[in-house]
Amino acid sequence: MPQKAIRDYIRTIPDFPKPGIRFRDVTTLLSDPAGLAMTIEQLADPYSDVGIDKVIGLEARGFILAGAVAHRLGAGFVPVRKAGKLPGAVISQSYSLEYGEATFELHEDAIEPGETVLIVDDLLATGGTAAAGAMLAERLGARIAACAFVVDLPDLGGHARLVQMGLTVQTLCAFEGD
Amino acid sequence: MPQKAIRDYIRTIPDFPKPGIRFRDVTTLLSDPAGLAMTIEQLADPYSDVGIDKVIGLEARGFILAGAVAHRLGAGFVPVRKAGKLPGAVISQSYSLEYGEATFELHEDAIEPGETVLIVDDLLATGGTAAAGAMLAERLGARIAACAFVVDLPDLGGHARLVQMGLTVQTLCAFEGD
Repeated sequence: MPQKAIRDYIRTIPDFPKPGIRFRDVTTLLSDPAGLAMTIEQLADPYSDVGIDKVIGLEARGFILAGAVAHRLGAGFVPVRKAGKLPGAVISQSYSLEYGEATFELHEDAIEPGETVLIVDDLLATGGTAAAGAMLAERLGARIAACAFVVDLPDLGGHARLVQMGLTVQTLCAFEGD
Repeated sequence: MPQKAIRDYIRTIPDFPKPGIRFRDVTTLLSDPAGLAMTIEQLADPYSDVGIDKVIGLEARGFILAGAVAHRLGAGFVPVRKAGKLPGAVISQSYSLEYGEATFELHEDAIEPGETVLIVDDLLATGGTAAAGAMLAERLGARIAACAFVVDLPDLGGHARLVQMGLTVQTLCAFEGD
């Protein structure tokens, strides 16, 4: 029997968070010990010889993966959070939502100029949050090795958008037609 | 020179999120590669022979630690999230905040009856969120090996409250007088 692939562990929930959306739910992947191990290893191991200093996790589901990827790579973990959540001095970056916009923040002392970072999140849709995270890291002088995601929804344009920004994008599986 | 201890990496931010609160900020611990490694290993390793099936992370900072602890233990990761965030069928538990209350949710199929779980969060203050997480896990038939935290603020009563519920509490450092 062939080994179960990452995509096979992901559950699709229809009409969440609203009618017409097929939500790709990674919780069924991460709750399985083999699924979690495969995911962390596939996200981290391409960068094991790159000298990653910090792994940036995007709030909230990105935190689950980025902490484990950072630990596996022997790097530090840095959170990018929604406005008002980080207690220290921050830099801010707005990004577009379907209606209106939101703001991400990064502690201004979380990354030293010249450090190499990896940005991690669970899912790449329009790319708005990952782009904002990348802009914040670059403003602190980081070199971004890559943006790494478990799930790619290429039809929503995020993959193309990040590549157009000059970023390297890694995804572990894709769902087309979303 | 003695090795830097976990407590030494934690930054205190005065008057966050409001006047009079000394916020114990673990981001300076987790952004340091040695600090992160020490934290994950000290949280996980007491349970390496216990047969932990699932590590439960409490939203949001608990996610950072619980994903890495689960990976290190060869367990699965399960999120406990604020109301409305989990896409599948959930069970709910309210808990008290300083003013009013909030609700935590857990996917009803995330834990099988009889599984052994470890609950992980960054900080133990009043214990309200950890107690809610423990109640959710117990409602699904889990055996809770322990609740593990990086920081204990024992003066806020959470440690005593969880012990009184019959839970085993593990903390890596404490700040008294909070």
